[in-house]
This record gives sequence, structure tokens and C-alpha cells, in this order.
Amino acid sequence: MKRTVDGCPIEAERRKELEGRPRVVIIGAGFGGLSAAKALAHTKAHVILIDRRNHHLFQPLLYQVATAGLAPTQIATPIRAILRHQRNTDVVLGHVDGIDTAAQQIMLGERRVAYDHLIVATGARHSYFGRDEWERFAPGLKTLEDATEQRKRILLAFERAELESDPAERARLTTFVVIGGGPTGVETAGAIAELAKKALAKDYRRINPHCARIILVEAGPCVLGAFPEDLSASAQRSLECLGVEVRTGVPVTSIDAYGIKLGAERIDSRCVIWAAGVQSSPAARWLNIPADRAGRATIGADLRAPGHDNIYVIGDCAAVDGASGKPLPGVAPVAKQQGVHAAETIKAALRRKRFTKPFRYVDFGNLATVGRKAAVANFNGFHLRGFIGWLVWSAAHVYFLIGFRNRLAVTIDWFWSYLTFERGARLITGDVTATAAPAARDLEAA
Amino acid sequence: MKRTVDGCPIEAERRKELEGRPRVVIIGAGFGGLSAAKALAHTKAHVILIDRRNHHLFQPLLYQVATAGLAPTQIATPIRAILRHQRNTDVVLGHVDGIDTAAQQIMLGERRVAYDHLIVATGARHSYFGRDEWERFAPGLKTLEDATEQRKRILLAFERAELESDPAERARLTTFVVIGGGPTGVETAGAIAELAKKALAKDYRRINPHCARIILVEAGPCVLGAFPEDLSASAQRSLECLGVEVRTGVPVTSIDAYGIKLGAERIDSRCVIWAAGVQSSPAARWLNIPADRAGRATIGADLRAPGHDNIYVIGDCAAVDGASGKPLPGVAPVAKQQGVHAAETIKAALRRKRFTKPFRYVDFGNLATVGRKAAVANFNGFHLRGFIGWLVWSAAHVYFLIGFRNRLAVTIDWFWSYLTFERGARLITGDVTATAAPAARDLEAA
Repeated sequence: MKRTVDGCPIEAERRKELEGRPRVVIIGAGFGGLSAAKALAHTKAHVILIDRRNHHLFQPLLYQVATAGLAPTQIATPIRAILRHQRNTDVVLGHVDGIDTAAQQIMLGERRVAYDHLIVATGARHSYFGRDEWERFAPGLKTLEDATEQRKRILLAFERAELESDPAERARLTTFVVIGGGPTGVETAGAIAELAKKALAKDYRRINPHCARIILVEAGPCVLGAFPEDLSASAQRSLECLGVEVRTGVPVTSIDAYGIKLGAERIDSRCVIWAAGVQSSPAARWLNIPADRAGRATIGADLRAPGHDNIYVIGDCAAVDGASGKPLPGVAPVAKQQGVHAAETIKAALRRKRFTKPFRYVDFGNLATVGRKAAVANFNGFHLRGFIGWLVWSAAHVYFLIGFRNRLAVTIDWFWSYLTFERGARLITGDVTATAAPAARDLEAA
Repeated sequence: MKRTVDGCPIEAERRKELEGRPRVVIIGAGFGGLSAAKALAHTKAHVILIDRRNHHLFQPLLYQVATAGLAPTQIATPIRAILRHQRNTDVVLGHVDGIDTAAQQIMLGERRVAYDHLIVATGARHSYFGRDEWERFAPGLKTLEDATEQRKRILLAFERAELESDPAERARLTTFVVIGGGPTGVETAGAIAELAKKALAKDYRRINPHCARIILVEAGPCVLGAFPEDLSASAQRSLECLGVEVRTGVPVTSIDAYGIKLGAERIDSRCVIWAAGVQSSPAARWLNIPADRAGRATIGADLRAPGHDNIYVIGDCAAVDGASGKPLPGVAPVAKQQGVHAAETIKAALRRKRFTKPFRYVDFGNLATVGRKAAVANFNGFHLRGFIGWLVWSAAHVYFLIGFRNRLAVTIDWFWSYLTFERGARLITGDVTATAAPAARDLEAA
């Protein structure tokens, strides 16, 4: 029998299926939210996972899209495809604007979604330390659109330099500044260096991309400050081998369309990338609970929001202390483990039990890569660096990607890229006409 | 010696290298322009290839990006990468606004690029047969941005239908109309049917994507009118097996935000796709030469613009008659062969000879696919259809893709897609908030 959509009995069946089931709403399908949803698969709960995107993004590799190494489709998977076989789970594409904790409802525009249990996993965005006007000159990297825009800026800079007759402007166009010496900044700087000095090396006739300057700026005393000293030093050496200039110990004091000021020094650049600060999404504000300086909600050891027995806040929007007393970092493994913990607490509640175990983060280690042949890895005191570190880094990232097809595609791309130095996603898409025109130049004179 | 970009001696070397060489400018790096550029590789000419994009696009597979089958990076290759080893060739990213034939210069904004020989290969865009107001309701497919926008519209339609409570709106959202029964329309309609009825089949809870309606509309008497009758009929049967409704013989009389009118019949749809008419880019206007009804420049049998011994117009912006006296179709093989022919004529001129052979198109055949298992192919009277046709179609498209990496990536994706029915590029990117909000709905009632 062909069922027409408008009279489709599917909706009626679905309603019957869910009648009377406790409802768990999860806001955010990043690492935390998705882990929680998957952990609730075989329960009697009706799970509603809400995200403003239709895909789960593997953020650790976003910088590779931004530096034309991978395609967006290789690091993102449709949420519906991931949760396809979880009958108890609905996926909703929507933008949450607030939470009415009294009525126990989520607000999505005109819609209301009621919950019995709520997990807030809305992540973080960039912080400019109070200098929000810097954002238009130094955009950050949080979404696929950020990444393809960044890719366009970087590739267009070389295109414009090729046609530019003014040497000063040409130098500005081929000077790239990355602000922030954490893993994102280090990886991005290394990747731009490889792009310029290897992949693009023979593509231009009037400029030599090999001469491009890539400058990594870090206000703290060293790059990868969260890593042990020897690994920080190793990462800096690897960056310098790639031709990246590393500046530490001086904060950025201003950013504009033509460059930055680093203390008293001026660095001219037309492409500044922000990888420095993060601030939480407004979870704490929605829930009207205290937050730390970065806006992350201050929550209990059991990940519950203070005063709300049925609300959990996890991932980058939550401030939780680790075993050492210091706040846990905003990294994927923390969010994933918190997602599972929150789900276990809810599962106990569904069985009318109380799960009071505090959250304990199991730290398997830290990884960061510098280009295609060197990485640093710290596994609880066991240090790896160089090529071995890079193999482990690659294997770990491929393993944690979601979807066999993505794993295969990324493995093949990295293998091919390793052999050929090519970067497989060097497309400029979007509006290329809006960039400021360089000075007129008669190519006849060339 | 480390060479700084601003004082980079590369530019001076390049100038010396090109001094005194005859200059061939090619506008457009599609199939025609790129063929011409490659054919001029080992000549004394200085070739300048201008395009407003940095990549060459394999247009025959653009509909696969639009229907979430392939990623943009798999069907586009950076022009610089293709021509990397052609020392005599410059690639310029720029937007041409006119041609000054008296001064023999191309106009790019404030810039002027002089030429000794000129090849215009600027392609075509969509035509709405004088009803340009239809474009905002029924966008076409010519660029990667068109394709990712189309992909977003199609996927968002299902997302919105999932949350829609009004059955009439839900039916509109899951009704897709493709206007134009040529190869693009047939391939697009087949791909949307597969997306809905296979790839998305289990991803929704309240709607059944299998019940989506896909309607292919063609004003002429049959689809694939340029193919032999038996192949047209075969294509129509394959479409109907996929669940596509095919309407022929009635023209579209109006298009708005809620659907189309087909003669007296109204079809409600929120997603109408245009694949019907094309019109040339303004080459004829730039050159001030006669054009046909579609704006294509009327040129000589040797592909020269009338009155201009050193200007050639090729590809979709040129109107050339074939051996049968009918105009040659706007397909890739025609453009490629014309590119080579124009290049040969110029090479002769560079040797101070005259190449007067008229252009003769060697027609190897026509192909069109209907979903993942059926295609029609006509090789000079030898007809293939069904699965064998699809194998030949796939092999031909992979073969003509540019770049080993793209061929490998597409082959793997199609193989995986064939086995799993999945479509590997189901991402919604860009602004998803701007779509009109469906009526408010309390999911509590579900």
C-alpha cells in the first residue's frame, strides 16, 4: 500500500510508540551530546537530540579543512545517519534560544519541547578577551563554514599576491599570523606552512609561496603549555623546521585589517587567524546558574546543574574540576566521558535508582601534530614525538572519526598527501569578488 | 639564500622568460578553455588562462553534489594544479567584464590584459525563457555554490517536514519538481528519488521519505529528446521504477514559492529545481558580433569570430553547426574538441602558417544515467541501457575526471554507495536559519 505523506500513518504509529515514556532532551550533538544519546539507546526513554546543524562535526580535524587538506564531508557525519537504528531517538534540527526550567521546556523559536531529563551540551565559541572588534580581522574556527571561509582567505591571499605589483602589499598577503599556541594554533600554523612550502610551491609564476611567512604567536612562555616541557620544546623545533616563526611571551595588543601589534612590534599581515580563547555557549545564562570567567556553568561533581536534579551540563559549556583540582580542559575525550556519565545517571533514575558516583575523567593522554611528519603525544608520562608520534596521532584520529567511509576517505587522503605533498581540498568556494581589489596592474608590463 | 617575497627575484626572472613571446589569452577554464591551454603547452606562446574561479569543475557530476552523493572536492580540481608543469602558462583569478577588440585587451575591473590571440570559452548559464522572476523559486545548477545550496534545500525540506504538523505543508515539503527532461533533469530526478527512497529511508521518525514525490516535467514529447526513441523510453521506464512521476508534453506556465502550474494543473512543491534552458555568457556582446536566440556567438566554421582573425569563440558560448546542419549541443566533448582545434589554429599562426581546416565534431556518443543501476548510452547507433549502460557511464565519467585522486575518491564513493545505498555528502552547510519557519508545534503532542 502506498502511503501518502500527508495522511501518513507513520506519525500516528510513532505517537503510540512513545506514549508514556520519560523524555530525555539533549541539546547539542557534539562529542558530549552524541555520546549521551548513544548511551541511552536501549532504554525506555524517548530521547530527543536537538542541534542547529544536521551533522556531527569532528572538530579536531577542522583545521585540516581550513588549510585545504580535507573536505568538509570527510569530517562530518549526518546525525540521523549515526542514530538511524536507535528507534527511541528523535533528531531535531533547530536553534535553542532558552530553557524554561520552571515549566521544564526548551524554547526553539515558537516551539516548546518538554523534558523530564535534560542534558545541555552546547559547546563553546571563540573569545577575544573582551576585544570583540578583533573578530572581523581574525576569525576563529568552530564550524564548517568557518573552515571553508578560512580556506578561501588563505588561498585567495596567494592568488592576490600573484597579481600584486606593490611589494609591501605582496609581503602582507603572504604573511600569515596564527594567534594562540595551543594544539589548534600549532596544528594550523604547521598546516599552512606545508600548504605554502610544499603543495603550492610550483603553482605560481610571479611569487614563490615558499617565501611566505607563517608566524605563530603565543602570549604564554611556550607553545602547547598544557604538555610537558620537553614535548613543548619538540613541537617548537618541528614548527621551526617547517619554517614557522614562533613568538612566545608577548601578548597581542591590537589587530586590524593590515596586521597585528605584538607588544611594541608591528607585524603586517592580511591573514590573521584566531586560535586563542574560548568562551562557553550561554548554557549557564539559560539555566540561571553561576558561571566561571569563560561563561562555563559551574556544576556539581555529578555534572548536575545546581538546584536542578534533572539537568546536566557537559562538555565545553561546563566547568568541572579534575582530580588535580584544576578545571578539566575543553577536549573531546572529556565531553565524551561526561556524556556517558550523565546518561548512566539518567538510566539509574529511569530504574528509580540513584547514581551518585562523581564524574572522574580518565585521561588517556594528549596529542598534537605539527605538519605531516611530526607530532607530540603524552600518554600519562609516556612521551612520543616526531614521526612515531605522527603515526599514533593519525591512527587515533582516524579511529575516533565516525563512519567507516570517513575513516577510509581520510586514510586514503593522508596517505596520498604524504606521498605527493598535495593537499586535496584546495577549492575557493563562495563569493570571491568581495575581497578588496589590489592596485591596478597591467600584466603587459610583466 | 632565503628570498623574501617583496624583493623576490622570481618576478624579474619571469619577465625575462616571457619577453617578446606572443600572448594567447584564454577566458574560461572549463572544458574548452582548459583543453586549449593544455594543447598550447609546448609552444613559444605565453598563455594566460583567466577564470573567475580557482578550480576546473567537472559539470556533468554537479548534480551528484546537489543530491548529496559526492563532495565538491571530488569533482573540482585547482586550475593551478592541473597546469603546474606548463611553464609557459599563467593562471589568473579574475572576473572579465569586457573585451576591447580595437586595443586588443581584456578588461578585468581596473586591469587590462593585452592579447595577440584570444580564445573566449566563458560557457553558459541558465535561461528562464524570459521569465527571470522564476529563478528565485527554481534555481539552476551551474556552480559548486549552486550545488551545495541545492543540497541544502533538498535536505532541509525533509528536516522541516519531520517537524511539520500541517499535512498539506508536509506534502509540499516532500514534493520535489525538476523542470527539464534533458540529461541534467533526468539524472537529478533519479538521484533525488534514490536519496529519498533509499539513503534517507530509515532516518526519520514522523515522515516516511519513501513517500516523497519526485516529479520530472518536460515540455517536449519525451525525456532525453536528443537520444533515440528506444533509449528515451528506457530512461522513462527506469525513472518510473525509481518512483519518479514523469510529465511530458505540457509546458510550465508559472512558478512560485509554493509550486508550479503545468498547463491547467497545479503541483504544490517547496522545492523546484530548474534544469531546462541555457543562455550563453555575454561573449557575443563583448565582441559585438551576431548571436543566436540563446545569446551564443555566431562564428565561422573555423571557430573564429566574424571580422576577427585572432579571436576564437568555443564551447557553450558559441553557436556552431554540426555535420547535420543542426547546432552542436552544449556538451563537454564538443567544447574539448573545439579547444584543441582553436589551439591548433593558433599554433599554425605562431609558425606563420595558416590552418584553415573547418571544425568537425567527432561524436563518440551520448550518455545519461538514471539512479545507481540504469543508464542509457548511444554510441553512433549502438545502444546500451540498464546496468551495462550504467557501468559504461560510470567508467566514462571516472575516466574523464581530472586528477588521479578525484578518480580514486569517486570510484570508492560510488562503490560504497552501490553496496550500502548511502549517499556520502549529506551535509547541510551555510545559513540554515533563514528558511521560513513552519507553524509552531508542541512536540509534547507527539
